[in-house]
Amino acid sequence: MDLPVDADRLRADIEANAAFGRVETEDPEAHARTNRTGTESNRAARGRLVERLRDADLDVTVDAVGNVLGTWTPESADPDAAPVVSGSHLDSVPEGGIFDGPLGVYAALEAVRAMRDAGVEPERPVGVVSFTEEEGGTFGNGLLGSSVATGETPLDEALALRNDDGESLAEALDRIGYRGGDAVDAATPTDADGAATTLDPASWDAFYELHVEQDTTLEEAGAAVGVVTTITGITHCEATIEGEANHAGATAMGERTDALAAASEFVLDVEAAAKEVVETASPSAVGTVGSLSVEPNATNVVPGRVAAGVDVRDVETESMETVVDAARGSLARLERERGVETEFERPFDVAPTPMSDRLREAAHGAAVAADREAIDLHSGAAHDAMRVARVTDASLLFAPSRDGISHNPREWTDWDDCAAATEVLAGAMGRAAVGER
Amino acid sequence: MDLPVDADRLRADIEANAAFGRVETEDPEAHARTNRTGTESNRAARGRLVERLRDADLDVTVDAVGNVLGTWTPESADPDAAPVVSGSHLDSVPEGGIFDGPLGVYAALEAVRAMRDAGVEPERPVGVVSFTEEEGGTFGNGLLGSSVATGETPLDEALALRNDDGESLAEALDRIGYRGGDAVDAATPTDADGAATTLDPASWDAFYELHVEQDTTLEEAGAAVGVVTTITGITHCEATIEGEANHAGATAMGERTDALAAASEFVLDVEAAAKEVVETASPSAVGTVGSLSVEPNATNVVPGRVAAGVDVRDVETESMETVVDAARGSLARLERERGVETEFERPFDVAPTPMSDRLREAAHGAAVAADREAIDLHSGAAHDAMRVARVTDASLLFAPSRDGISHNPREWTDWDDCAAATEVLAGAMGRAAVGER
Repeated sequence: MDLPVDADRLRADIEANAAFGRVETEDPEAHARTNRTGTESNRAARGRLVERLRDADLDVTVDAVGNVLGTWTPESADPDAAPVVSGSHLDSVPEGGIFDGPLGVYAALEAVRAMRDAGVEPERPVGVVSFTEEEGGTFGNGLLGSSVATGETPLDEALALRNDDGESLAEALDRIGYRGGDAVDAATPTDADGAATTLDPASWDAFYELHVEQDTTLEEAGAAVGVVTTITGITHCEATIEGEANHAGATAMGERTDALAAASEFVLDVEAAAKEVVETASPSAVGTVGSLSVEPNATNVVPGRVAAGVDVRDVETESMETVVDAARGSLARLERERGVETEFERPFDVAPTPMSDRLREAAHGAAVAADREAIDLHSGAAHDAMRVARVTDASLLFAPSRDGISHNPREWTDWDDCAAATEVLAGAMGRAAVGER
Repeated sequence: MDLPVDADRLRADIEANAAFGRVETEDPEAHARTNRTGTESNRAARGRLVERLRDADLDVTVDAVGNVLGTWTPESADPDAAPVVSGSHLDSVPEGGIFDGPLGVYAALEAVRAMRDAGVEPERPVGVVSFTEEEGGTFGNGLLGSSVATGETPLDEALALRNDDGESLAEALDRIGYRGGDAVDAATPTDADGAATTLDPASWDAFYELHVEQDTTLEEAGAAVGVVTTITGITHCEATIEGEANHAGATAMGERTDALAAASEFVLDVEAAAKEVVETASPSAVGTVGSLSVEPNATNVVPGRVAAGVDVRDVETESMETVVDAARGSLARLERERGVETEFERPFDVAPTPMSDRLREAAHGAAVAADREAIDLHSGAAHDAMRVARVTDASLLFAPSRDGISHNPREWTDWDDCAAATEVLAGAMGRAAVGER
């Protein structure tokens, strides 16, 4: 099935959404927006989405954490069948781009419109979803709406999160009218006791998320769509190295326990371990020491203490553990060889998340039908699809990103590329919705 | 000549001075004081010094930058002969110790009293000096009073320096009554036009400074006095390394230009170069990367930019240059091998300062006469003697510091050690003042 999409209609939706929280910059090529959860810009973006869902005759639901769902239940569909859902998020990082999130939401809506325009007759309802606070930074660390909906984060805990102004998420959503559907005359899901609750992705048949790649794999390959095989696992580790702070002039080279010199070996050991894994085991493995804080951090004092933040990711758990083990081993060696004391913590650890094979195959089938080139790749970044994949079949598709620039006003995806990727998304959703496997 | 000093009188002076700006701490072994230029504590410390100089029949001069000089002109002396002067400073770092500075001032006064008590008949006047703002941090970067008096820093420039409250040094000295001698009924030096000016160390025959060592060389050697051969040169360099900030998950290991990994090689190259110089050329050489700032410094972002502060010191200019050249060479190599862009600046550079051989020999002679063990050593830290040495013969003597602890309430020098070092200082000053060479 080939499902031509209306590229202008899609563009108009994304451009209209880009106006909410627009930030003027001096760069003529930049398109910046700041759309943080609970702001007036965020209310406006949600409001227009609800309007556009209704324009397309979708039934709107707003859940207890502000996730918005529009559902198309055509006559061909069993209204009780598990739906096929697609979407992403409308919030942004400060001065982020206009495609990161909104492309996935409005592409899903365009896919529904395209299916209807093409006369597709789904066996199942088809949904368009926008998850709350995907970026994090305003309330919590990100993927919030999908984490609550999939049971990863308790609803009460999420609603109690506070922004920098001290306002809770519950208060912020109440204020903009998106804590449940009442304020916008939409349905609110309820639990067995009748209390407002969240969407339940576990009850979905399939979930597709289209997102900009944020890297250059597609651009370099000249491909229209990336079909993600696995979202990498992510571990964050915190290493601390204690030496002895001393006068840089009065302390002879042989009398020092320099925490920064030790930390420098640690940084290089982590880099070398990741490169070794890339060469011998898993080309997608990465290991980064992204942050380093030095105490007292004065030019004329031998550093006494360094804290280093380490990020390790891969599609294979085993190769991640190899890099983490190398980091621990480096610290043990530095204790022996340099006399420092070290600590190692691992506060954040998410296993690699494989995407659904049947949805991936449906996406490739749709790409062939649309005569668009699709390639398999992995995602090094986390997306809502990572959470949804814990509870049902999920698939993540990528559109090309110019120069891979992300979380930046210079983020860009050409409108033709948006349309091409949306066409493949529509085909894949259509295949899933009519039961083609 | 052996000049017994009155250990109790010296201790009483230092303890009385320690009360000005005393800071209570929970540690029973700690003796903390905060004595910043221009504060009431600073006025009180100066006031008691003036009083004690006059108690010993010295003529007091206060110069245009607040340096205080007491002069003893016995009948044996030619009042027009170039004087022998000794002293140090009364100001402290925040929560500093009680000996760093005051020992040198009150030891010089005790030496004058000891000379008189012993019937020494100097051919020259003998002076006791306290320099303004040696520590820096309140007005400028330190050694201020001696820098102005020796012509290193213009008087106007010094008086225009402002503290954190926005008050100029001129205003602060006016307020506490130490901008010139008028307020305390003391002389003020004037220039040819009759304008208030500073002391003129270039007109001194000799300058001795006794200071606590701030390191453990004397403690380990069991020696009473250190006779400094050279105050090390100091260079501060600032290296910046530009890589490319990127998503730590989405950027493959082979596609990175990681500024922190490059900076880590730089840190280790500087350390290795200094150790190499220590082993092959000059044991006193030190090279330190003391500060490092990373941008954006987030665990999940490949570092894009690092700035590193480098401190290089030695008694030999050549070995300092070897370490600095190695630092430059490291950056050039990193540009080639890692594709980073680098910059290198050298904003601070002071050459090594050899101390006067004749004054050093006088100190050793005094130590032998007093039956105190004296050893030669170098100073890795800067002192007022470094400035004075540019314009006349200068000598720096060290008393032991317990555990080398400095700029800390736990700084300590035993009272017996204070007296022993003061005895050697008195003997050395006496030798210089009577013309023994």
